[in-house]
Amino acid sequence: MNVEIISIGNEILCGNIIDTNANYIIKKLREINLNVQHVSAVGDDERELIAQLQESYQRSQIIITTGGLGPTEDDITFQSIAKAFGINLVRYPEAEKNMVEILNRINVTISPSNLKQAFLPESSRCILNPYGTAPAMILEKEGRVIVALPGVPLEMKNLITEQIIPFLQKRFPNLQYMQSQIIRISGLGESTVNDKIKDFINHNHKLNIGIYASPEDIQIQLNALAKTPEETKKILDQATEQLKALLGDYIFGYNQQSLEEVIGNLLRTRKLTLAVAESCTGGMLGEIITSTPGSSDYFKGGIISYDGELKEKLLDVSRDIMIQFGQVSEPVARAMAEGVRKKCNSDIGISVTGIAGPGGGSPGKPVGLVYIALADEKQTLVQKHQLHKDRQTIRLRSARRALNTLRVYLLTIQ
Amino acid sequence: MNVEIISIGNEILCGNIIDTNANYIIKKLREINLNVQHVSAVGDDERELIAQLQESYQRSQIIITTGGLGPTEDDITFQSIAKAFGINLVRYPEAEKNMVEILNRINVTISPSNLKQAFLPESSRCILNPYGTAPAMILEKEGRVIVALPGVPLEMKNLITEQIIPFLQKRFPNLQYMQSQIIRISGLGESTVNDKIKDFINHNHKLNIGIYASPEDIQIQLNALAKTPEETKKILDQATEQLKALLGDYIFGYNQQSLEEVIGNLLRTRKLTLAVAESCTGGMLGEIITSTPGSSDYFKGGIISYDGELKEKLLDVSRDIMIQFGQVSEPVARAMAEGVRKKCNSDIGISVTGIAGPGGGSPGKPVGLVYIALADEKQTLVQKHQLHKDRQTIRLRSARRALNTLRVYLLTIQ
Repeated sequence: MNVEIISIGNEILCGNIIDTNANYIIKKLREINLNVQHVSAVGDDERELIAQLQESYQRSQIIITTGGLGPTEDDITFQSIAKAFGINLVRYPEAEKNMVEILNRINVTISPSNLKQAFLPESSRCILNPYGTAPAMILEKEGRVIVALPGVPLEMKNLITEQIIPFLQKRFPNLQYMQSQIIRISGLGESTVNDKIKDFINHNHKLNIGIYASPEDIQIQLNALAKTPEETKKILDQATEQLKALLGDYIFGYNQQSLEEVIGNLLRTRKLTLAVAESCTGGMLGEIITSTPGSSDYFKGGIISYDGELKEKLLDVSRDIMIQFGQVSEPVARAMAEGVRKKCNSDIGISVTGIAGPGGGSPGKPVGLVYIALADEKQTLVQKHQLHKDRQTIRLRSARRALNTLRVYLLTIQ
Repeated sequence: MNVEIISIGNEILCGNIIDTNANYIIKKLREINLNVQHVSAVGDDERELIAQLQESYQRSQIIITTGGLGPTEDDITFQSIAKAFGINLVRYPEAEKNMVEILNRINVTISPSNLKQAFLPESSRCILNPYGTAPAMILEKEGRVIVALPGVPLEMKNLITEQIIPFLQKRFPNLQYMQSQIIRISGLGESTVNDKIKDFINHNHKLNIGIYASPEDIQIQLNALAKTPEETKKILDQATEQLKALLGDYIFGYNQQSLEEVIGNLLRTRKLTLAVAESCTGGMLGEIITSTPGSSDYFKGGIISYDGELKEKLLDVSRDIMIQFGQVSEPVARAMAEGVRKKCNSDIGISVTGIAGPGGGSPGKPVGLVYIALADEKQTLVQKHQLHKDRQTIRLRSARRALNTLRVYLLTIQ
């Protein structure tokens, strides 16, 4: 079955926005095993759009458009669909009612251009939009399905997920069901993950498996395909168990779970508090930890000791140690973590000191050298890392490594 | 002149990557006043690609493809172009030489699939790629121009900027020249900027003007179109002077200049040092300031006093003031800025305390209420802001407002 997407709007062809809608729709369709063969972007130009619709109609069974459903002159999708296939536009009272209700609720006077949005191609199915005045539409013609969705991402996402995917599953009952799961890994590099799961990949033919690396973590994406959601769930559960056996505690979470969220939950259940001492990350570690709502339950704060003077003044790092070993060194990281723990009166102190570059490196201490320390009541652990790439990536990876060190530590003290 | 872009690759149609290449090419072409009418994405499928090329050839004078130039089986762009237009593939010795040199340099053995990359459509112009083994190609046929570029963004960007744009300008000497300038504004909302420059927009017909808002700043984009780069420069310079008169110090920079970079330069030339006291931003302000290389010249560090206890213990904020006015209040912001200045021994102290949400708001102190204070040797300024949207946007805007407060302050003490 040929499926295609048409993104409509001058803002795409002017370069003002990157079309992310098509990517979202592609992913949603893949979940029900529909593969897109073409994506096109055209401007708000009736002639161009009609030509594109007719051409797409020749080659595809399912055509999904986004954009051009608004109230202004340049919103021409419904009229172009009508003209492309020789259909009249007719007034849909339910669309008008929904629009009037929404506009009344936000105290907007209804104009003739608003009313235009309630005129849909005749015989099409009107799909009411809970988030906006523009209804979506499904038109069936000669075994083909044409879907028109609004271009506003929030509205489009809601409609495709809640309405269009269920419609397509019903309309094409032979579609297989695809379900995905993401396994998130911290503390291992991409090639090591690849080596560890190579056999798993080669012996697992029920799954489509991808490994993706970002500065934040490594993700293994599992795509399972089967006749029912129950079957796909079973395949994913089995695969997840196998990966757990292979990767153990390197797995920190699943799907959209973030490392900072996982750590927050671990700290909260263990009733432990945290403070940070940051040098090269300059506040990034604190920023990431506090991006999770409710982090005040366990995060007390910290000290950004960017300048050596502050390491001494605010964290009690001895000047002698800094002179002897340098600010980026094992003993300084250790003293920073212990110092911040005491100064902030927290159960755990974490420190990061490193050379983020581009300047400041030397043969003995190159750019990317980072020390991370974790202090609790009884002990202090220190790690040395050699990271690579640009300043911002080195800082981000330093913060992520520190978070992962904390996570692994928290797992050991159940 | 009709121009179109074809993005080639299964990774786009599988949803694994968002096609950002098309957006980059659109923007580059707009600089020479070439407007793209169509963007298409197709998979690594010879039949589909040939059909798309032939169709594009019917309607467009310039066709630019990206992707499918690699050494593997699924890289089929050259062969598809050759088949689509009935041309042979022939060996280009200069392409082979370039590839052999690159592969030798990185100690990779040359395989037959590498050699495939040196076979281009006959009579095409081979464009050597300084960043990779895949050459690009320009084919001219019946007044039409077909350009094939690699899909790797770094390689594509270099080739379009360094080779393809100059070629098109020479090939179509009647093209006007477009040049853009971005004016960056901080401290004003989008609608206020709009009001202030409305007359400027209405009376300036030599320019295409857009206003874009992000949580970071407001940008006015000026696009000037003329016969020569000198003329566009003159138009942009005039417009910039007019905007300076209208917006004054709200303009903080131009083009890719960031607020933190501007502040860094102001602090450095004034030989002043800075420290931050952060509550709701949790380290974000420090993180942004230290994202600029060399920030250790002026940034000493700071204190993340997320917990009230640390405001007292580390910043000397009196407990009585916190009890009487609350942690998010004018007197606490003031005491934090003064405290961090003293504790960190800096010339300037800046503080942020606010309610980022989603929890923690009350009728008297709603989510988004933020106090920012700036203390120097002589005085302390405090500002109250009511911000909106989600937790992360409120935090980001708080940090940005604080930076802008600092910038405006630095301008007054030349």
